[in-house]
Amino acid sequence: MKTCKRKAVLLLSGGLDSTTILALAQKRGFEIYAISFRYGQRHRRELQAARRIAAAAKVARHIIVGIDLGSIGGSALTTGIAVPKDRPLKEMSRGIPITYVPARNTIFLSLALAWAEVLGCADIFIGVNALDYSGYPDCRPRYIKAYERLANLATRAAVQNGRKLTIHAPLIRMTKAQIIRTGLQLGVDYSQTCTCYDPASAGEACGRCDACLLRLKGFAANGIEDPAPYVAQRALRR
Amino acid sequence: MKTCKRKAVLLLSGGLDSTTILALAQKRGFEIYAISFRYGQRHRRELQAARRIAAAAKVARHIIVGIDLGSIGGSALTTGIAVPKDRPLKEMSRGIPITYVPARNTIFLSLALAWAEVLGCADIFIGVNALDYSGYPDCRPRYIKAYERLANLATRAAVQNGRKLTIHAPLIRMTKAQIIRTGLQLGVDYSQTCTCYDPASAGEACGRCDACLLRLKGFAANGIEDPAPYVAQRALRR
Repeated sequence: MKTCKRKAVLLLSGGLDSTTILALAQKRGFEIYAISFRYGQRHRRELQAARRIAAAAKVARHIIVGIDLGSIGGSALTTGIAVPKDRPLKEMSRGIPITYVPARNTIFLSLALAWAEVLGCADIFIGVNALDYSGYPDCRPRYIKAYERLANLATRAAVQNGRKLTIHAPLIRMTKAQIIRTGLQLGVDYSQTCTCYDPASAGEACGRCDACLLRLKGFAANGIEDPAPYVAQRALRR
Repeated sequence: MKTCKRKAVLLLSGGLDSTTILALAQKRGFEIYAISFRYGQRHRRELQAARRIAAAAKVARHIIVGIDLGSIGGSALTTGIAVPKDRPLKEMSRGIPITYVPARNTIFLSLALAWAEVLGCADIFIGVNALDYSGYPDCRPRYIKAYERLANLATRAAVQNGRKLTIHAPLIRMTKAQIIRTGLQLGVDYSQTCTCYDPASAGEACGRCDACLLRLKGFAANGIEDPAPYVAQRALRR
C-alpha cells in the first residue's frame, strides 16, 4: 500500500547545511520538492552539487530558478569583488561580511513560497543557521518567525483554506559541529557538498574563505576529516 | 544650489497604478530608482511601457530584473492558460482569479528590498490596491504591514544602523476612479501605460480582461475617455 507523504519545498544550495536538512526532512517523512537558484553566483559548482545531491536523495522534483541578482549588485558573491581569505573566526562573527548577498534569504524564501503555493504544500525547509553566521540579519530566529507570519498573509492557501504555512529552520540554533554530527548520523555524504565561496576551476574548495574555515572547524570538532576535496590536498599530492 | 533628495525604490510595472505612484513619489520629493521585472509574463508590452514611463519621468535609474517564474508556474500570466474575458465586476471581487501570480508581490518586494539595501535607501513604493483587487491576498494593508516588519529584520541597514525602512502603498485604499483622478491632477499621461493582461500584437489593450474592465470603469467614473489604444477602436476605424 502506498502511503501519501506530506510535501515540503526545500531550499537546496548544494552546501553542507541544506544537504543536512534534506536528510532531516526525509527522515521526518516529507516528500521533498527541492528548489535551487542560479542568481549570478561566481561559480556554478554549487548548482552541480545541488543536482547530484537531489538525484542521490531521490527527491520528488528539483527545479533551478534563474534570478538576475547581478543587476542589483552589492555582494562579493555576485560581483567581481574579491572573496576575503584567511580571516580569523573572531573577525567573522563581527559585522556583516562582504559575501553577504542583500536580502538573499528573503528573495529565496519568496520563490519557495510561490512554488509551495502552486504545489499546495504548507511546509518550507531552509538551512539557515544563526550561530556560525551571526553577521547575517536574515539568519536569525526572529527573522524566520517574521517571514512565517508574512507567508501566512501572502498566499491564496492561507486566505482561502486557512491552512497554516510553516517555515522549518531545524539548524538555526546549532553550531557547525552539531550540524555535521546530525548529518553523519543520518548518513549524509558530505563529500558531495560544495561550501566554498571561491572554488578552484577543478572544483576543489579553497580552504581559506569564511565558509571553508567554518566548515573545517566543524569537522575538526567532530574529530574527523572533511571528505570534500581541497586545493591544499592537491598541493600536497604534488 | 543642488538639493540632496531622498532616494526611493519604486516598483514600476508600466501599468496605471505604478505610473501614478511614480508621479506621487516625485511630487513628495523622492529621487526615484525604478525596478521592473521580466518574470515570464505573456507579453513584453508592459516592459516597453515601463521603459518609456521611466525615461519620460527622468528617474535616477531604471533596472529590469529577470526572474524565471515560468519554472514555478501556477498563473495564467506566466503560463499558457487563457486569460478570462468579459467577467462581470461582481464576479471579479469573488475569490482569487487565475491571473494571480503566486507570491508575486512578495517576490517583487524582496528584490526591491535587496536593491534598496545596496542603494542605502529606506523607502520603497508599491502601487498595490486593496479595493479593486480584493481577491489578491498580497494587496491587503495587513500584508504590507507584515512585509515592512519583515524588511526591518531582514537587512543590514536595519541591523547596523537601526534605520527604519518604510513600504509606501499610497493607493492601497483608493478605488480605480480615485487613482485615476489623483494621477490626472499630477499630470500623468495615461496613454503611455499598459494595463491589459492580453494585448493585441500591435499593442492595443483587449478591453475585455479583468484589468481592462476595471480600468475602463475607473475612467468612466471620472467622465473621461481612456487615452490608451484599445482593439475595439481599431475595429471601429475599419
